[in-house]
Amino acid sequence: MQGAKSVQELLTSDFETVTVIGTAPALASLKSKSSVELIETGEKELGSLSEFQTNDSVLAVARIKSAKAFHPRLDEFVLVLDDIRDPGNLGTIIRTADWYGINHIVASPETADFYNPKVISATMGSFTRTTVYYVDLLPVLSQTNQKVYGAYLEGKNIHQERFSDGGLVLIGNESHGISPQYEKFVTDKITIPRFGHAESLNAAIATAIICDNLRRGDEVRGERDEVRGTR
Amino acid sequence: MQGAKSVQELLTSDFETVTVIGTAPALASLKSKSSVELIETGEKELGSLSEFQTNDSVLAVARIKSAKAFHPRLDEFVLVLDDIRDPGNLGTIIRTADWYGINHIVASPETADFYNPKVISATMGSFTRTTVYYVDLLPVLSQTNQKVYGAYLEGKNIHQERFSDGGLVLIGNESHGISPQYEKFVTDKITIPRFGHAESLNAAIATAIICDNLRRGDEVRGERDEVRGTR
Repeated sequence: MQGAKSVQELLTSDFETVTVIGTAPALASLKSKSSVELIETGEKELGSLSEFQTNDSVLAVARIKSAKAFHPRLDEFVLVLDDIRDPGNLGTIIRTADWYGINHIVASPETADFYNPKVISATMGSFTRTTVYYVDLLPVLSQTNQKVYGAYLEGKNIHQERFSDGGLVLIGNESHGISPQYEKFVTDKITIPRFGHAESLNAAIATAIICDNLRRGDEVRGERDEVRGTR
Repeated sequence: MQGAKSVQELLTSDFETVTVIGTAPALASLKSKSSVELIETGEKELGSLSEFQTNDSVLAVARIKSAKAFHPRLDEFVLVLDDIRDPGNLGTIIRTADWYGINHIVASPETADFYNPKVISATMGSFTRTTVYYVDLLPVLSQTNQKVYGAYLEGKNIHQERFSDGGLVLIGNESHGISPQYEKFVTDKITIPRFGHAESLNAAIATAIICDNLRRGDEVRGERDEVRGTR
């Protein structure tokens, strides 16, 4: 974990931070806890410890959380990642989900590892607020009572879709899309309308556009409720 | 340029392809032109030529296009990139813009280079349909008669914005957002509403969400026109 912003997010999260290593000014700028070991070092030494070439001046060591069982609430949206292999994509998906208030993500075992440094870095701190459950997707999809949304070429235009209050949003692999064996569990096929010529969208981009359209539904439902005087 | 899909896109574009190097089956699968030199090679030799570690079996050499002057049409949306430094972000922005029918992009000189292999790769072929004009942004923004949209924290909710039929969409740098000196040229400040806790969105993600909301306006306008019987 590195970078002042990410380290600060880590320190205020429920992760157990063990050690923070940084330059004197970087350490002074952090709000730390008494249980955390602080180690002051020079920029050069720090550079040799770090995974990335950046001008970051601090890094942290935290304990990996033990895996939790997945128990979704019925009134929330959960992303279900079908083999998102690229760490940058996974990190960006976690960051975007956090922006849209989605904090639980189910991922197939083949999905990039949550603790891959490229994933953590791309989340820009959102990893502290997001739980990714690595499980076999088949029981999750086959046993849910909720809607399962999935993006297909021949789905309903996402701009016209009325999303429910919660459900599973299945995101396909970067190259192959949603695995054929999951298609029968998709209750609502949706499509991001295309206005130009690109053949497809990047997986993280598609996820973001779906999230934006999901949440727009919340605003519309809020307005409808207001009109009816129920809020 | 490498990868069967990208090379095929290149061959059918207005780029001048000089040479295609690939395995025998890969070359056989391409629709090429008589002017292109085809060189058959083994996979191992190809791997040593290639920038990336992939299982792609073909690569192409094409001429870089000479820079064109930027003359926007009034009825189109143009992205204006204020120092997008990350090649992956630029490539993804080009791919996404192509999906949304936006084919002209103005970029500050500090933006990542269009011909960077990581940019070309991330466009997934969309580079063949997109022109990026590297120019000083100040005259572009100060001399336009069109609307200039820019994402700020205190802008109008993009879900409620009625976009015009065209205009410039200013996209800020990954770390610093839109440069302060351009703020006075932004006629319409917009905001992507946040429902969770992430501090910001990735630049390519934000661009995609803006594009999706821009084009949704087209559909709404289309419906309005239909109701009025003008189409």
